[in-house]
Amino acid sequence: MSAGERSHLEREIREQPAALRTALERTATSIDRFARELRARGPLEQVVVAARGTSDNAARYAQYLIGARLGIPVALAAPSLTTMYDAPAVPRGARALAIAISQSGQSPDVVGVLESARGAGVPTLAITNDAASPLAAAADAVLDLGVGLERSVAATKTYTASLAVVAAFVARLGEDAAASAALDEAPELVERAVALAFDGVPALDAHHVAPHVVVVGRGFNYATALEIPLKLRELTGTVAEGFSPPDLLHGPIAAVSSGTRALVVAPPGRVRASVLEAAGALRDRGATCILVDDSADADLRLPVVAEWLSPLVAVIPGQVLALRWAQIGGHIVDAPPGLTKVTETY
Amino acid sequence: MSAGERSHLEREIREQPAALRTALERTATSIDRFARELRARGPLEQVVVAARGTSDNAARYAQYLIGARLGIPVALAAPSLTTMYDAPAVPRGARALAIAISQSGQSPDVVGVLESARGAGVPTLAITNDAASPLAAAADAVLDLGVGLERSVAATKTYTASLAVVAAFVARLGEDAAASAALDEAPELVERAVALAFDGVPALDAHHVAPHVVVVGRGFNYATALEIPLKLRELTGTVAEGFSPPDLLHGPIAAVSSGTRALVVAPPGRVRASVLEAAGALRDRGATCILVDDSADADLRLPVVAEWLSPLVAVIPGQVLALRWAQIGGHIVDAPPGLTKVTETY
Repeated sequence: MSAGERSHLEREIREQPAALRTALERTATSIDRFARELRARGPLEQVVVAARGTSDNAARYAQYLIGARLGIPVALAAPSLTTMYDAPAVPRGARALAIAISQSGQSPDVVGVLESARGAGVPTLAITNDAASPLAAAADAVLDLGVGLERSVAATKTYTASLAVVAAFVARLGEDAAASAALDEAPELVERAVALAFDGVPALDAHHVAPHVVVVGRGFNYATALEIPLKLRELTGTVAEGFSPPDLLHGPIAAVSSGTRALVVAPPGRVRASVLEAAGALRDRGATCILVDDSADADLRLPVVAEWLSPLVAVIPGQVLALRWAQIGGHIVDAPPGLTKVTETY
Repeated sequence: MSAGERSHLEREIREQPAALRTALERTATSIDRFARELRARGPLEQVVVAARGTSDNAARYAQYLIGARLGIPVALAAPSLTTMYDAPAVPRGARALAIAISQSGQSPDVVGVLESARGAGVPTLAITNDAASPLAAAADAVLDLGVGLERSVAATKTYTASLAVVAAFVARLGEDAAASAALDEAPELVERAVALAFDGVPALDAHHVAPHVVVVGRGFNYATALEIPLKLRELTGTVAEGFSPPDLLHGPIAAVSSGTRALVVAPPGRVRASVLEAAGALRDRGATCILVDDSADADLRLPVVAEWLSPLVAVIPGQVLALRWAQIGGHIVDAPPGLTKVTETY
């Protein structure tokens, strides 16, 4: 496919290094100010995050990063409690922060959670790609990704930009100057990840008709283990699912067979041994394992990167794999049937 | 199959009404005492729940019930934050309650979360079927289900007993006498659900080779939408997954086709219209829908029951379906290959 014929999806995958740079620069001042305001209010005891779809996977990254770096539990909100059962998102005056993540900023249920939290006197933060959205209007502070319109229905650049902005916010809230500095290198790392992925993915063409794909990841990359299958589903219609090793072993592994292709997301870090152990259990059931890490043994190689930052690069080969398998399978890449870019749910 | 040949699983499914009665009676005094102690400490601002596998689905019910009835956000703990990243489960002195649910009480990661919370000065509650387990030892209060050894690897009676005990605890904590009284009828309702399920399930025999099963439920029955697929996976090896309607529409519906069997869990209540709307979207993609509700149109009929209590009965036809499809498919019902009753994860 020549450059002129590239899909929006492919262009947006390749745009990610620039999008990250933009998002980090655009949000720096707002992050600084809001983090200072929050610290001035006294210690937080909890964070509630509302999101759907791809943004929910960015919320999952926020859960692990806030938990590991700040020691604060994160509740991933059940928006229907607000929209269907009229329950408050948090009790009045709770020592909490409410965050909503939505590229469009349109979904009424996600907006509803933020409005409920704000009504309870809790500070609210919106992470969105549309500063004029209802979500932005409902928040005390807005981190506007500003990465430009995302034309592909399957979100890519808004996902990695959301991860980067979450990471920048957590670094500032925790006054972790080293983490903030490390983030400056994220765009370059993502650039290398994109190049490595477009190089490496074609070698896996033979697997594109997998009837069942399982992605395993843990800790910071539990988000990756959920986001890659979502891309594969959206783009190829394949039944693809993500698990952490303990969740996989507590039952779902029973549905793994020789028809299963497993993506094993195992960059170096504290959870690596546990993820590789799960890969062993998958192989024992006949699954074909595709290793995603930074070693020479990797089937899909990642650049070397700190564990807490690795979700920004580890998702890239999954995006490219989903694109490639969709192309080989003759799927409509930019607008998969039955999906819409803005999904309004209540 | 004659009564003498019944599997442990079938016996345990049928035992559920008695198990519920036992669990509710055994835990009444402890629930009373612990709820009083908690109220005396002042208002809670958050609840953290740790669990894995089937118990994680009981935790999901707790999330919705505590959210809807008490207006308190529930964080489903990421145990690896404690075991892999040495992060505290909650900040010291947080106005929180930590709950762990585990039938065996053995899994080190779940125990780890409760120990961490206790170390932070937060009250801790264990819901378990083994009062002598490490989990019970780590908790300030123990709700001992006492439903007898569960011999089938696939959990049934410990799941519904956990739901009942969660409901009883939330009713007492909220001083909701009507809810406590309504719970007394749960064993009888479950008895009717068991009878209806064994009557109704054989009519679905033709569907047992479904390559892909999707279960849709919402609100209180999001737990049901996650637990039924887990039973189907464990017992039949089928790729079965659960979704709430918004999550389904935000991408995963792209993997639904005419090969999909969809169980639509739609007992009356606030979320019913939304679930039936999702069923329409599934039918539009060619899926065969199996309706689980209390109407005459139901493919699998439930007894009439209040929405907040319906997860105790709505899971039953799913348990029986998984049993039946496992039998028809020639699977080993009580000990599916590759699974163990006690799964120790870190």
